[in-house]
Amino acid sequence: MIRPGVRYDPTPGDEDECSELLGYNEDWTGRYRGSSPLVLKPANTAEVSSILRYCHDNCIGVVTRGGNTGLCGGATPLRDEIVLSLEGMNNIYGLDEHSGILTCDSGVILENLHAYSNERGYLFPLDIGAKGTCQIGGNVSTNAGGQYFFRFGGLHGTVMGLEVVLPDGRVLHLNMDNVDDDGTVQRTKRISTHRKDNTGYDLKHIFIGAEGTIGVVTKVAIACPALPTSKNATLLVCDSYCDVLKVMATAKVELGEILSAMEFMDHNTLKLVQAHGFGGNGDGPRLLRDMLQSDPSKQESDRSRQLYLLVETQGSNSADDASKMDNFLAHLYDSGTIRNGFLAQDSRQMTEMWRIRESCNPSVLRAGCVYKFDVSVPIEDYMTIAREVEGRLFASVKHVDPIVCVWGHVNDGNAHINIVTPGRFETESAIEETIETIVFDEVLKHSGSISAEHGIGQKKNEALGRLKDENIMVIMAQIKALFDPHGIMNPGKYLPNKYQHNMCK
Amino acid sequence: MIRPGVRYDPTPGDEDECSELLGYNEDWTGRYRGSSPLVLKPANTAEVSSILRYCHDNCIGVVTRGGNTGLCGGATPLRDEIVLSLEGMNNIYGLDEHSGILTCDSGVILENLHAYSNERGYLFPLDIGAKGTCQIGGNVSTNAGGQYFFRFGGLHGTVMGLEVVLPDGRVLHLNMDNVDDDGTVQRTKRISTHRKDNTGYDLKHIFIGAEGTIGVVTKVAIACPALPTSKNATLLVCDSYCDVLKVMATAKVELGEILSAMEFMDHNTLKLVQAHGFGGNGDGPRLLRDMLQSDPSKQESDRSRQLYLLVETQGSNSADDASKMDNFLAHLYDSGTIRNGFLAQDSRQMTEMWRIRESCNPSVLRAGCVYKFDVSVPIEDYMTIAREVEGRLFASVKHVDPIVCVWGHVNDGNAHINIVTPGRFETESAIEETIETIVFDEVLKHSGSISAEHGIGQKKNEALGRLKDENIMVIMAQIKALFDPHGIMNPGKYLPNKYQHNMCK
Ligand SMILES: Cc1cc2nc3c(=O)[nH]c(=O)nc-3n(C[C@H](O)[C@H](O)[C@H](O)COP(=O)(O)OP(=O)(O)OC[C@H]3O[C@@H](n4cnc5c(N)ncnc54)[C@H](O)[C@@H]3O)c2cc1C
Ligand SMILES: Cc1cc2nc3c(=O)[nH]c(=O)nc-3n(C[C@H](O)[C@H](O)[C@H](O)COP(=O)(O)OP(=O)(O)OC[C@H]3O[C@@H](n4cnc5c(N)ncnc54)[C@H](O)[C@@H]3O)c2cc1C
Repeated sequence: MIRPGVRYDPTPGDEDECSELLGYNEDWTGRYRGSSPLVLKPANTAEVSSILRYCHDNCIGVVTRGGNTGLCGGATPLRDEIVLSLEGMNNIYGLDEHSGILTCDSGVILENLHAYSNERGYLFPLDIGAKGTCQIGGNVSTNAGGQYFFRFGGLHGTVMGLEVVLPDGRVLHLNMDNVDDDGTVQRTKRISTHRKDNTGYDLKHIFIGAEGTIGVVTKVAIACPALPTSKNATLLVCDSYCDVLKVMATAKVELGEILSAMEFMDHNTLKLVQAHGFGGNGDGPRLLRDMLQSDPSKQESDRSRQLYLLVETQGSNSADDASKMDNFLAHLYDSGTIRNGFLAQDSRQMTEMWRIRESCNPSVLRAGCVYKFDVSVPIEDYMTIAREVEGRLFASVKHVDPIVCVWGHVNDGNAHINIVTPGRFETESAIEETIETIVFDEVLKHSGSISAEHGIGQKKNEALGRLKDENIMVIMAQIKALFDPHGIMNPGKYLPNKYQHNMCK
Repeated sequence: MIRPGVRYDPTPGDEDECSELLGYNEDWTGRYRGSSPLVLKPANTAEVSSILRYCHDNCIGVVTRGGNTGLCGGATPLRDEIVLSLEGMNNIYGLDEHSGILTCDSGVILENLHAYSNERGYLFPLDIGAKGTCQIGGNVSTNAGGQYFFRFGGLHGTVMGLEVVLPDGRVLHLNMDNVDDDGTVQRTKRISTHRKDNTGYDLKHIFIGAEGTIGVVTKVAIACPALPTSKNATLLVCDSYCDVLKVMATAKVELGEILSAMEFMDHNTLKLVQAHGFGGNGDGPRLLRDMLQSDPSKQESDRSRQLYLLVETQGSNSADDASKMDNFLAHLYDSGTIRNGFLAQDSRQMTEMWRIRESCNPSVLRAGCVYKFDVSVPIEDYMTIAREVEGRLFASVKHVDPIVCVWGHVNDGNAHINIVTPGRFETESAIEETIETIVFDEVLKHSGSISAEHGIGQKKNEALGRLKDENIMVIMAQIKALFDPHGIMNPGKYLPNKYQHNMCK
């Protein structure tokens, strides 16, 4: 029996409802599937609170669902947990014109926050490829990174306040005032939140990146910087990773505070983009061809070591920014650091450059089965690790012709390592295991992290248990037990099995 | 009995040791005093660990001490707790030239980190007036804010990794690799830490701002931005707070990404600076005089509403920055937003401007007893609150001629409200109580926070219990109990008495 506040309870036999229900049981990649019989769509915090309290009292598992774009199966039920979808909670309460702090419900889609803040002269400081679908509550719960991370910082820096509902129904207002106990907003006043608030343990940070395991985020306050009005982009071709490092150093000096993104792509990746994602004869494909063949005298086997960078600036003065970009490129040419460079002449060309970058993901997926890793590594070892993985794969799973593709936010040390088995489209678990062992092994050998921004979910929780210090795992389990004593929130995920407490034991 | 790893154990009767001991029992302001008989100065993490384990096992209270510049008595014993001073742990392990991440022991003095990173082309992203004395471990433990906060973000955004020792002696390496279990650094490798690490609950954030109540921070990794090479500063005079808000809006547009500080001072404050802190006939005093008398035709009573801003920019190109500053000032003059503006012509004049700002604190102290408050308020209510406090003080404690002085980081909504009782130099507890009630009352009426950056310590823990949501207080007490079950860390502070668990019950 479910209490009031419930919107959706599919009756078996109704076709539309059944197929809708199916959608809530599958993750974005189609890899994970659950069998939840029930989706609840609360309209406000009070409803979230009464649903959770009921589930807590009755030991019913709950999977919180944002935009379902997470890549680790976190928003997909393992078994028959209830799905709590926040899509109906999508008010934006305002953006304080002086502090730049925006407050909204957790179910607001990221792209809508971009539009809302841009109209008011502010930049929303988080941008990821899934922005048209993901929700800010999901972003906070996965501690999403993305392309603004380097310049505008991560969510631990930009999130100022949170409202969260604990499993037992208690509502916490963490640096977020003028919200009533039931989580509605006091009509007389705006929501109030501060950039600085040192009044005890800063609990909101425990919820940033907690992936729905200790409570539900219902409202978010985020500090937005002033909107940059000028943007430039360039695509660079380097002969070696050593030159990539020199570009990064030069950018720090010549572009300084206006550097807004430095996206890395290797040759394998762009070859697949060319083959699968970016055909035709438009500006973009021509640019891609020119980049790949920057040195016509070279053999293709030599070219395969070429590396590519998309460098973007954002600033407040277009003349100043353009001259900084000119100095930057001149410096790179003069010092022989780049083989070639393409400067976007207008916003259309800039869009084409970003389309190349954003085609990496879909293009590799079209080439075969993709074993995806999102890791942090020391910046200077970025390509060494990829080469080592490549070498070991050739030695162990040569028969599937593995292609190692690397792209990512290189100035954050964040590498997306994608291993493609061309023409084989099904996940093969023996191969998967071999690949995972090799990749994690190499990453850890270089003191890397097995999850940079994508998180744990149901994909990496056992690996986490194997690879992370036991002292830390024990404390994580204690934190989980403190907030969710009945273990109803996203049961079976995030923590490895041996650190999960069973429901209502 | 204390185990090995102990450096300092004063024998009663030794004069020097006794006076040294006294220093460790007093806080920076001289307001708080304890009676600890013992100061321990560990040389490394292993020693911290064995000291804490011993104290945990034997229920001995421990006060961790950094640079002792905290303003809430947090580093001063309440009674006879042991003082654990980290001054002997001051290695800097390196600054990764690619990622900009600096790693060091927690006892390093902030100013030394400035010098170290500047020499390597990076800016250490925290700057506070106490930099010559405070330690990075103390900064992390108080979540210090300061003048770089607006531009470079707070410590929750910049701290990448921590090593902490728990009360029972366990050592946690939080996003910090290549450190051995005893907290020493593996000789073969640098300490490794990442900008992005989403592998479970991000425990390091619980220790940022925990004021030594749940463990000791022993190592810190912080991400530094590229060093800006050009700096400009201007001092502005406004007739009203409405104009101050206009200056802030204009700065966002015209100065954009190079705006690095916006420091506010009111007329009362600068009059005291002139009277007590900044005499003579040099450049600074002349500037101060010119500012205060910006409109010679005005009566002093009208001038008393004048407000002052120190605006600083930091960027990577001096020509670009200078022209942005010119545009900014031209815009302010043309629109009549400022009554007067002074642009620093060289670094000497810039230093004088900052000296005026940094004289606020010492100058008010010379005028009488100062009741200090460090609060966060909605930016638009910044001065309204001060005026309301003033009105109520005149009604209730007129006989002590209270002067309300306000300065602070206005673009963070962070106000330092200082109430001076001129000529009366002793704290009077009845007056203190009245003033605190009025200030907190007004701040909370406007949904502010009673501690922006200075924290809780032994000064505000009872107020915290009165003013903060009970749900939150209960969870804070649970967090405390989880990490420090015997209640040995900074006993009696931070949490109000009713949420403290007694030692070893
Ligand atoms: C094309 C594409 C590009 C991407 N690019 C990036 C990128 O650049 N950087 C990056 O970091 N990620 C990226 N991702 C991954 C993903 O978009 C992010 O993890 C995103 O933050 C997930 O948000 P969501 O709303 O879709 O969350 P969901 O997938 O719905 O949920 C993710 C997790 O958070 C929990 N959750 C969701 N909402 C809440 C809530 N309100 N309260 C509590 N728990 C909640 C869920 O239970 C689940 O465990 C990308 C994904 C795609 C498909
Ligand atoms: C002139 C002046 C200007 C200031 N300006 C600012 C400012 O602009 N912004 C601001 O935020 N503050 C400011 N402060 C306050 C103070 O400098 C900060 O709070 C500073 O971060 C304290 O550092 P410390 O090393 O002196 O810590 P201490 O005073 O020694 O300790 C502070 C607290 O942290 C704990 N602690 C210290 N080290 C550790 C550790 N390694 N592990 C665990 N706990 C520890 C102590 O037990 C205590 O509770 C100022 C102070 C002065 C005197």
